[in-house]
Amino acid sequence: MRKELHENRAADSAEKKLTSVSVIGLGNMGVALAGAFLKGGHPTTVWNRSSEKGDELVGKGAYRAQSLAEAVSASDVVVVCLTTYEVMHELFAPLNAEMKGKVLINLTTGTPERARQTLQWATERGIDYLDGAIMAIPPMIGAPDALIFYGGPKSVFDAHEQLLKQLGGNTTYLGPDTGVPLLYDLALLSMLYGAWYSYFHAHAMLSTANVTAAEFLPYASNWIQHLIVPLLTDPETARALDEGNHATEVSNMAVNRLGLENIVQSSEEMGISPDWLVPIHAIAKQMVEEGYGADAFTRVFEEMKRNGGHPHGK
Amino acid sequence: MRKELHENRAADSAEKKLTSVSVIGLGNMGVALAGAFLKGGHPTTVWNRSSEKGDELVGKGAYRAQSLAEAVSASDVVVVCLTTYEVMHELFAPLNAEMKGKVLINLTTGTPERARQTLQWATERGIDYLDGAIMAIPPMIGAPDALIFYGGPKSVFDAHEQLLKQLGGNTTYLGPDTGVPLLYDLALLSMLYGAWYSYFHAHAMLSTANVTAAEFLPYASNWIQHLIVPLLTDPETARALDEGNHATEVSNMAVNRLGLENIVQSSEEMGISPDWLVPIHAIAKQMVEEGYGADAFTRVFEEMKRNGGHPHGK
Repeated sequence: MRKELHENRAADSAEKKLTSVSVIGLGNMGVALAGAFLKGGHPTTVWNRSSEKGDELVGKGAYRAQSLAEAVSASDVVVVCLTTYEVMHELFAPLNAEMKGKVLINLTTGTPERARQTLQWATERGIDYLDGAIMAIPPMIGAPDALIFYGGPKSVFDAHEQLLKQLGGNTTYLGPDTGVPLLYDLALLSMLYGAWYSYFHAHAMLSTANVTAAEFLPYASNWIQHLIVPLLTDPETARALDEGNHATEVSNMAVNRLGLENIVQSSEEMGISPDWLVPIHAIAKQMVEEGYGADAFTRVFEEMKRNGGHPHGK
Repeated sequence: MRKELHENRAADSAEKKLTSVSVIGLGNMGVALAGAFLKGGHPTTVWNRSSEKGDELVGKGAYRAQSLAEAVSASDVVVVCLTTYEVMHELFAPLNAEMKGKVLINLTTGTPERARQTLQWATERGIDYLDGAIMAIPPMIGAPDALIFYGGPKSVFDAHEQLLKQLGGNTTYLGPDTGVPLLYDLALLSMLYGAWYSYFHAHAMLSTANVTAAEFLPYASNWIQHLIVPLLTDPETARALDEGNHATEVSNMAVNRLGLENIVQSSEEMGISPDWLVPIHAIAKQMVEEGYGADAFTRVFEEMKRNGGHPHGK
């Protein structure tokens, strides 16, 4: 029985002819990606600019290519995870012949605009291209809840969805626009930095009266759980933004402007830089001056996106 | 039995001689405060600069004073909830004689420095002073979980704790420093604005690719619940700030600097102002340049509080 099962599995595996993959870039994330492919039984080739990396992967059965050209030629699918798009283009520029007909899955972080340009670059060279954004840290790669966004031609995604699921169970296709995965990525990151940095700002202010972070923690946690989370995860808040409905009976722009002014002023009094808050106060002040003092604070959103899609100087 | 109970209660109430209170300032919050005192059975006097306010309170048994001097003279405790400290000082400046020996509880929002100056002002005039900060919206006033912070002489707080509990069950004394309640208030507010504004920024960016807030909501909610909340409510994060321990094995300053650069750059490409993010990127960049590239992002906190307590130009 056991033997039979094993034989069946081996037959399945042979029949499927698991896709060969080359992973380019062996930072912490690249190593995690290659490890997940190896675990899934895919023939895996790795390459990194500095050749000392990847020993552990070789120990697990990866083949280490001696050059990027060799790495690219070794597999059907090339997965790239480098520092920047600039580095990627510099490395791949001499390899048009080797890349033709390959599938390139780019998990490098950058801007949506770069991802869109790179689809065009790939298409011109006969490369099937997907752009992706990993919303997980390296130890999470391969887990059922690891979230990775993809954008690009649907046919390319469909053909390789099973392969990509080796990297994260929560593999999510966002449509043909290769800029959208990084747009989602940067949108979520901006939420992280706003929440994180303002938390530091709070504690920097508190430190001037020798209030420790541990002392403040119960109040901060309660505030986050009972005010901030309900506000930001409420479908009504999303609807207000989508519909431009900024009516309120609770906390209007005038009150928020005053609150922001008090934070800016007291930060200055304490010697804590309010630089990140100054533009937020300025936009609230502008909204009040333009007659929106009775609107909800969400009204600033209209002003923020007013120039969206119409970049300065273009 | 019922009658006896009733008589006992009446006797209790008469024996206690509930403290008389005057509420100065009848914005939404002032009205809620006066309403809570009335509900608790306290003789309540109200006053507002524009006399048309407070009709509903009079209907519930409040006495409307014809002048601030009359309002102050009518009660033992004066509760103030005005727009700014400047307005308060302007109104009370002519009333030194009337205020002497009174208890002044100031729930006006402002800066910690103003609250400290006002304790000194009150002490010089023989006024017992508490400064408070209301962490609730008007409809929550009087509820068991409504949080209000107080600072000032412990004896004054103790003498009036029961009265103040009419306003919120979660009445919290933070010590003799009258600046601390507003410091807590502004710290929590700064967390709110950081989380809120960055959420708008995320959606402004997404709107350039016609991604709606409703579409993005599941990802935003998941990110908030599973990444941002655990990060900010983790006692280890608080300990890292208190102990200055910025080691990391997951996401270092160099990676965060790059992420911030990508947000700033792509925001510019999209015509969404990155002004609030520019100082955050700048401090991360500075930390990398100073050799902290392998540290956690929390390392920026050391730089942020470096000048704390030593205001510029003082």
